[in-house]
Amino acid sequence: MIEPAVSLDDPRLLPFLPALYVAWADGDLTEDEMQAVCKGLDGDCFVLLGRWLNPAEPPSAAELQRMLRTIRRNASDFGRGEKLNLTDLGLRLARSDGGVVGSERAAVEALERALGIDGTEAARQLLTTRREVSHQAEAEAGFDTADMQAILDGDSAGIRRRVFELLARDDFQYFDELPKEAYREKVLEWCRILAGEGIGALSFPEHAGGEGDLGAFIAAFEALCHFDLSLVVKTGVQFGLFGGSILNLGTEQHHREYLPRVASLELPGCFAMTETGHGSNVADLETVATFDPETDEFVIHTPQEGARKDYIGNAAAHGRMATVFAQLELGEGEEKIQHGVHAFLVPIRNPDGSPCQGVWIGDCGHKMGLNGVDNGRLKFDHVRVPRRNLLDRFASVAADGTYTSPIASPTKRFFTMLGTLVGGRVSVASGALAVSKSALCIAVSYGSARRQFGPPDRAETRLLDYPTHQRRLMPRLAEAYALSFALRDLRQAYVQSDPLDRRRVEAEAAGLKALATWHAIDVVQTCRECCGGQGYLSVNRFAALKADSDVFATFEGDNIVLLQLLAKSMLGDYKRQFGHMTPLRLVRYVAELASSTVAELNPVVVRQTSEAHLLDRSFHRAAFAWREKRLLSTVARRLKRRLDGGLPTAEALLECQDHLVTTARAHVEHQILESFATAVEDLGDSPEARMLSRVCDLYGLSRLEADRGFFLEQGYFEPVKAKAIRNQVLELCGSVRHQAVPLVEAFGIPEKLVGAPIAR
Amino acid sequence: MIEPAVSLDDPRLLPFLPALYVAWADGDLTEDEMQAVCKGLDGDCFVLLGRWLNPAEPPSAAELQRMLRTIRRNASDFGRGEKLNLTDLGLRLARSDGGVVGSERAAVEALERALGIDGTEAARQLLTTRREVSHQAEAEAGFDTADMQAILDGDSAGIRRRVFELLARDDFQYFDELPKEAYREKVLEWCRILAGEGIGALSFPEHAGGEGDLGAFIAAFEALCHFDLSLVVKTGVQFGLFGGSILNLGTEQHHREYLPRVASLELPGCFAMTETGHGSNVADLETVATFDPETDEFVIHTPQEGARKDYIGNAAAHGRMATVFAQLELGEGEEKIQHGVHAFLVPIRNPDGSPCQGVWIGDCGHKMGLNGVDNGRLKFDHVRVPRRNLLDRFASVAADGTYTSPIASPTKRFFTMLGTLVGGRVSVASGALAVSKSALCIAVSYGSARRQFGPPDRAETRLLDYPTHQRRLMPRLAEAYALSFALRDLRQAYVQSDPLDRRRVEAEAAGLKALATWHAIDVVQTCRECCGGQGYLSVNRFAALKADSDVFATFEGDNIVLLQLLAKSMLGDYKRQFGHMTPLRLVRYVAELASSTVAELNPVVVRQTSEAHLLDRSFHRAAFAWREKRLLSTVARRLKRRLDGGLPTAEALLECQDHLVTTARAHVEHQILESFATAVEDLGDSPEARMLSRVCDLYGLSRLEADRGFFLEQGYFEPVKAKAIRNQVLELCGSVRHQAVPLVEAFGIPEKLVGAPIAR
Repeated sequence: MIEPAVSLDDPRLLPFLPALYVAWADGDLTEDEMQAVCKGLDGDCFVLLGRWLNPAEPPSAAELQRMLRTIRRNASDFGRGEKLNLTDLGLRLARSDGGVVGSERAAVEALERALGIDGTEAARQLLTTRREVSHQAEAEAGFDTADMQAILDGDSAGIRRRVFELLARDDFQYFDELPKEAYREKVLEWCRILAGEGIGALSFPEHAGGEGDLGAFIAAFEALCHFDLSLVVKTGVQFGLFGGSILNLGTEQHHREYLPRVASLELPGCFAMTETGHGSNVADLETVATFDPETDEFVIHTPQEGARKDYIGNAAAHGRMATVFAQLELGEGEEKIQHGVHAFLVPIRNPDGSPCQGVWIGDCGHKMGLNGVDNGRLKFDHVRVPRRNLLDRFASVAADGTYTSPIASPTKRFFTMLGTLVGGRVSVASGALAVSKSALCIAVSYGSARRQFGPPDRAETRLLDYPTHQRRLMPRLAEAYALSFALRDLRQAYVQSDPLDRRRVEAEAAGLKALATWHAIDVVQTCRECCGGQGYLSVNRFAALKADSDVFATFEGDNIVLLQLLAKSMLGDYKRQFGHMTPLRLVRYVAELASSTVAELNPVVVRQTSEAHLLDRSFHRAAFAWREKRLLSTVARRLKRRLDGGLPTAEALLECQDHLVTTARAHVEHQILESFATAVEDLGDSPEARMLSRVCDLYGLSRLEADRGFFLEQGYFEPVKAKAIRNQVLELCGSVRHQAVPLVEAFGIPEKLVGAPIAR
Repeated sequence: MIEPAVSLDDPRLLPFLPALYVAWADGDLTEDEMQAVCKGLDGDCFVLLGRWLNPAEPPSAAELQRMLRTIRRNASDFGRGEKLNLTDLGLRLARSDGGVVGSERAAVEALERALGIDGTEAARQLLTTRREVSHQAEAEAGFDTADMQAILDGDSAGIRRRVFELLARDDFQYFDELPKEAYREKVLEWCRILAGEGIGALSFPEHAGGEGDLGAFIAAFEALCHFDLSLVVKTGVQFGLFGGSILNLGTEQHHREYLPRVASLELPGCFAMTETGHGSNVADLETVATFDPETDEFVIHTPQEGARKDYIGNAAAHGRMATVFAQLELGEGEEKIQHGVHAFLVPIRNPDGSPCQGVWIGDCGHKMGLNGVDNGRLKFDHVRVPRRNLLDRFASVAADGTYTSPIASPTKRFFTMLGTLVGGRVSVASGALAVSKSALCIAVSYGSARRQFGPPDRAETRLLDYPTHQRRLMPRLAEAYALSFALRDLRQAYVQSDPLDRRRVEAEAAGLKALATWHAIDVVQTCRECCGGQGYLSVNRFAALKADSDVFATFEGDNIVLLQLLAKSMLGDYKRQFGHMTPLRLVRYVAELASSTVAELNPVVVRQTSEAHLLDRSFHRAAFAWREKRLLSTVARRLKRRLDGGLPTAEALLECQDHLVTTARAHVEHQILESFATAVEDLGDSPEARMLSRVCDLYGLSRLEADRGFFLEQGYFEPVKAKAIRNQVLELCGSVRHQAVPLVEAFGIPEKLVGAPIAR
């Protein structure tokens, strides 16, 4: 019935050619589609086009090419800017070929309509042979990046500059393929340079050759994190942990005798706390220290394999001495008393590098990352050290074996000792944030330059202009800014706190360490994926950032354990020892909290969706505060029910463990928001403050969105509000995206340290 | 006023000692607390105890120790099993010392009560000196692990056994520190062993020395993923991609000439598709192939740096030939026509290993992982190959330069060609799941053996008995099971599909590849963290699992791009070409979808919370189905509004990109649940089926919980239901935990391949 073929050269076919080509080029027409098209055609047209619309006999590849060639040849002088649909294009073709026009328009339009496509777009694609290349520049910065950097750096600006100048030396270069042994030596060499420049002694007192500036040491640690993390950890072990244990747990004689040699790296040392059988559970470690009054010596002993010290930095290759944490046992038989964990200075290697007598040293071998750090294992077979090697700030043993301590309570003593070492968590949290910033800097730079896919007639779209890409990077960028202010506040609180009572700052450090390290792991992963195959090449830095920072989630305290500690200190009132796993007084605090009331919900607010309301900082703060309080009072009620029912504290806590961790997270996020919001308010009005305010909005709203399940469940949001928040987040992502490049520039990471060629 | 000190040796103090010790040992008493305690005491008691309750003058460390020693010495013969509180303990002490009893009970009780602590727990802790060690065994398996393994393996059991027997040979060993070059040679050697055993030719037709069994090839690929992923990728490149391109895009002459040498690894080859400037956007790659009729040759050329082939496996060291994808341009000047992407066999190395004339070969260098694969770069400077080197199954060029193709539409031709190569995505998805299973096997084994923290008077708690630990591992274990069945169905659909029309299976493969690879990344990370410091040591395998599998998220198609492709094919009806970035017919499909209705919500069901309902499979299926349909119809409506308003298709799609990706995810999760649920139903009743049913419940409910924000927002859940689901998930986690060890044993991974010492 469909007959006969009208030749492709027939000028009557010309106006229909664009629509015909498009109909077939995109894929075969189905029977259904053909019928739909034919229905729209009148009899004459049908005869003319029938042969070319027959699914049983599609045009050949050669015929389709002839159609395209005919169209392109005839249309070569049509203006590119014109907005033609397929009908316009067909009619223009016919006209330029002298074909007849007039009544045909209706027929061509009928065909175009029958195809059910966007004819203008199709016509534009038909005429496009090559993509344009765009040289359109990025939007200009709406603020001064140097001023923004100054805000972020705060009083760390000087020490950051000092560290970055050091790292600019040719000695400091990235290596992607150094074998473990060579890498360890390289890191030791770098560490010596830092020591020589006084970086190691920053936090030591002046009488020990230092600058007495703990804040500067942490800031230096953070700045170093933009370079090689093995160096950072080695530095942290030598000066922060080994040096820090002598500084904080020892007394003046220890300071004078050891600190200068620690600072100069003449005495490389270890911090031997963790045991194979006891990771985060320090109170239960099993290495034993006894006292022998006959020789006036302590005897350090590893009673069984699980008590082996493990993952000890500096132990496998370079350490000469270790601060060893052991259970001090005094007295004999019936009179034997365990005094809890104490720290002893124990030489582990002789001057020739061989292990000291009775000391067994093992190597942890190859690790996921940080292979420039020589992690090792230590066992002690009745190793003897002089009595003065007890770090005796919080407890001492007299020559006759009598034990004295300025802190009577063993629990309090233990936590006070640990508390003096909390600097590690503050540093790791800051270091993790530096890792996030390096990763964001690379991914944002690449995303603003790299183009992929997009409309066929324009330059490909920049990755950062894809909403999914914005969704992945912008909230994380906002969180990095938020954490900057929260960690600045933490650092200040830490430096200003009473070294003997850091329970509150310790709890805050635990929580922020957990969230900042998880943030880093998540950000590095996302940024790597956002850079595709390029992100997988070691030269572009994600390999090292990822492998090296991964351990942050579990060292200096496992994150889940830390959040539980924080939760427990929230249940108490921070006055009680932080971290005790079964606080006996819990039952009292829980009763108080359980009876506390959380503000009633306002039925108008829960469904308010105006932009002014959604961007109102006080709405964010109220929501974060409400969530924390609500979670705390409900978990207290659950605990109280269990304790009232006679369940032992430990079991009650275990049953509510998940709820406790959620509560701690909510607290930390609230704290982060408060730090950020307060910092923004304190800035007054300036382009930087306005930018930060927008970033703060994105942080607040994107966290609320992420937890909308909770807020909806609690009736704090009506569904309509949750939806409005989502839309607002999307909008803020688009808005912050335009300033994303200057926002990562303001991190102030030297180009050499960013390193990745794709970030240039 | 508080005066005078009653000596610690005064027997009148004895009954109070336990409470007094506890009051101080836990930390200093504050003024408030002391007052609270004193209020509960009568005058006599106050005189007696006053000195020992004075915050201004706490007991010394020595005094506290004396208290403890007195208690322990006197209480040494008290039964451990007895349930004493502090009062009981104090009175018993007094009695054994001959102290007076009677009216004292009230006074001691008053003190204990005033402390506000759990006295029984405190007393137990007081008397505890050493932890017990538990040898309590894990719960017994409630099902037969061999039967469960048979269910999981299905018809892959034979090939899995074959691969595992091969890998049991001494040739196959893990190496943690092999330098890149040595690692590459090792992997080549392994690859030769596989080739020698016929693994490479599994999918090749019999006339080319193969077994014609595509399913077996994919199953072998998956089994290999429990060993070294560099070997897997090298195998995939050589046999799946290079061999597969010859098999699927070439014709019989190519098969005869090349496949046997590909299968034997005599001819190592590359699959040169990806370009530096075009990652996932294959249609726009820029390498050009022209035809020279004079010499009967194609000329392959790299016109600019961005057109360089990049990340090409086997290119840097071993490849001799490459399947090169290039834009075929025929004709000259006005007559020039671009025929789109075609594949050509191009020799790249001479027999002596030097690059062929005009071929430039670069090395991608060190990578985050997979360093046993020699990824490289290729550029072509007018390289000539004979006309027969065009893989001409879908298009051929005659000696006179005439182009013919059995598929007229260039778009359809392109997607048909790509469609024949979709096996890569099916394989990568399966491989990613194998990685998850290896990681889960290690973390679950470790978590069931490792103990940490816990009540002071019992053995420490197994990690797996912590609810947070269960929360982290059990839903992921459930998802691994769910994916096993979904990928089995995908593999079958793929093997059974028409090789020339795999559009539907291609869309499903894209979605499952995205979710399975993200699942692997997430699982490996979580499992690593769950193993703490041990997880960071390379010997425990997470380092390699993590670094090697990371690239899965972006190779064989970036996951975000793949989800968008899936979403677009959901908008069409799978009949249209899958993957076209601006489907011109979109507007028609969108209108249909937008007008489709989603089932009304049932007000009773949205707040139903009975366990029977929550564990009803039909509830899960309905919820997953509803979510998918709802997301699809709302995104269609949003698109329609934009298209109706005149926005170009590409821009409309861009604006709804986030929504599209969410829709695709919902579709894939629905598909996974359906596969799992159907598999469980098909099993009838057996212990394995009952276990799987519980795992399926956990999968379904934990996904619903994860997306409760959506369901609450849509009114599909009332808050009370969302809470009930959360509690049910927690309960299921606890229940599945008891069978977690046998559940990972049923994965059937040989101990040698699990590798990690901590898993033993």
